[in-house]
Amino acid sequence: MIKIGIVGYGNLARGVECAIRQNPDMELVAVFTRRDPASVQILTAGVPVLALDQAASWKDKIDVMILCGGSAKDLPTMTPAFARDFHVVDSFDTHANIPAHFAAVDAAARESGHIAVISTGWDPGLFSVNRLYASAILPQGKDYTFWGKGVSQGHSDAVRRLPGVVDCRQYTIPVPEALDRVRSGENPELTTRQKHTRYCYVVAEDGADKAAIEQAIKTMPNYFADYDTTVEFITMEQMHRDHAGLPHGGSVIRSGITGWNGESRQTIEYKLTLDSNPQFTASVLVSCARAAMKMHTRGITGCQTVFDIAPADLSPMSREDMLAHLL
Amino acid sequence: MIKIGIVGYGNLARGVECAIRQNPDMELVAVFTRRDPASVQILTAGVPVLALDQAASWKDKIDVMILCGGSAKDLPTMTPAFARDFHVVDSFDTHANIPAHFAAVDAAARESGHIAVISTGWDPGLFSVNRLYASAILPQGKDYTFWGKGVSQGHSDAVRRLPGVVDCRQYTIPVPEALDRVRSGENPELTTRQKHTRYCYVVAEDGADKAAIEQAIKTMPNYFADYDTTVEFITMEQMHRDHAGLPHGGSVIRSGITGWNGESRQTIEYKLTLDSNPQFTASVLVSCARAAMKMHTRGITGCQTVFDIAPADLSPMSREDMLAHLL
Repeated sequence: MIKIGIVGYGNLARGVECAIRQNPDMELVAVFTRRDPASVQILTAGVPVLALDQAASWKDKIDVMILCGGSAKDLPTMTPAFARDFHVVDSFDTHANIPAHFAAVDAAARESGHIAVISTGWDPGLFSVNRLYASAILPQGKDYTFWGKGVSQGHSDAVRRLPGVVDCRQYTIPVPEALDRVRSGENPELTTRQKHTRYCYVVAEDGADKAAIEQAIKTMPNYFADYDTTVEFITMEQMHRDHAGLPHGGSVIRSGITGWNGESRQTIEYKLTLDSNPQFTASVLVSCARAAMKMHTRGITGCQTVFDIAPADLSPMSREDMLAHLL
Repeated sequence: MIKIGIVGYGNLARGVECAIRQNPDMELVAVFTRRDPASVQILTAGVPVLALDQAASWKDKIDVMILCGGSAKDLPTMTPAFARDFHVVDSFDTHANIPAHFAAVDAAARESGHIAVISTGWDPGLFSVNRLYASAILPQGKDYTFWGKGVSQGHSDAVRRLPGVVDCRQYTIPVPEALDRVRSGENPELTTRQKHTRYCYVVAEDGADKAAIEQAIKTMPNYFADYDTTVEFITMEQMHRDHAGLPHGGSVIRSGITGWNGESRQTIEYKLTLDSNPQFTASVLVSCARAAMKMHTRGITGCQTVFDIAPADLSPMSREDMLAHLL
């Protein structure tokens, strides 16, 4: 039985709680929160919710701590700190800062003899693994990542911060023609605008200047200015009724050529269609917790990514069953 | 520089030769054949073609031997034998006999201190890895493997052995409605007949009884009897003009549920669209040869499958580049 602790209790953490329940070799031991523990109601009966600063005293009762903090403010300090007392798994997803995060976590985990799996989930995570497999197998090729159709929480938050906006749900949508061209093996050069469009459902304050909000969204640098963006104003009732979920997904596609004269076109696509982005991400984190335990029994310590995890370590199946039923 | 030898010189071996040329960290050292070496013309200038029984004397000049023999008669004895003198990679694909093959190869490779990667390619191989990832991440789910549209060489050969048949190309074709139902996350129960159809292009001898050939194909047990099969007679000229290639591909799809009450449907699809089945299989074998070398430097020996290979070991990229550009 792998004993799991969860740090934080937002959407991702709830997904981890649900995923643990689906895996008979795992057990949720405790949830740690920065909020008042008495105010946090979890789903699993009989499992304590505790203050974050009590976590260290649980080091002998928890094997793997799954860290469900944010990449901007929490994980850069939280992951190295927890790696001193536990094996840890995080979903750090600020791509540009991954090398620095890796270095900090690796130092802490090596010193304490723990394993830390960072930046896992689906992107970074499963999409990264598929970029790696595909590029290793088709060295002469080009890969493309399309996201969506799905809710981008970062973009939704950016719109919510605008004056006059009460709520927003932003959908990222791949351009169908771009997807078709890539799937056909054409290997086109595509601009940001040619790959994805953005669609914002916005609830505005009563009397807000909707034209000004629309203009502010469409010209927002980094987030929207490089995209064709559509803004649609809806009521809070419509928001709750039609946009309560957090669906997402996307495709990693690599097309390459093989043969003495590059005469054969070969295309690999990995595609996710997700009703719930946080629950799926959580399911990946939980399988990585299992891998951390298996790798540690072989004497491995330090920071690991999905690139370092042999697929067998993610699974509860025995080698015999894998060879007989999956290979 | 990884020094590669190839055993055999059919379609797969030629694909290996082409793939080595695409990987700057690899070098083809020699090709070994059962035929008269003087009769075998390879593509790479300056590389010797030698008799199979000379291979052992090349043990200090070759790092990894890629074994391109057949699964029925060659590999069961060839892979353990070569694992005594070399790291080896094979594409053994008789699913039911994989556990026995693994045991025989593992014993030989452990004794000699080599690594043997068996049963790699795309199925078994990449499809297997994707079945494993998907089942580890979505434990409550069901997976489906669809093959095609593509040429099945085993089925083509079976038809070629019928009296009156000069040549045949058999295409395996997924049933579009079945694919749609699986992609939608419906998790249907599908019979063999509901998943794939088979289409045979047949060149018959002059004066052959075409009705009898068609009947013999459609009722052939194991190969065709459980499928809806179409037989079309064509000329040898049409065969050469329209069916010279060996395209293939397919999809591994797993749909599962997550959430406290299984309320979210999550679907993972891995799809290959291949102009050349043997060249793609060969590209996977070559990346596994690199993995064998990397794993051996960490002291690993014995038989390995794609399940045991950390993705990073397949790639020539440095860890720094992977973290910065792929994760």
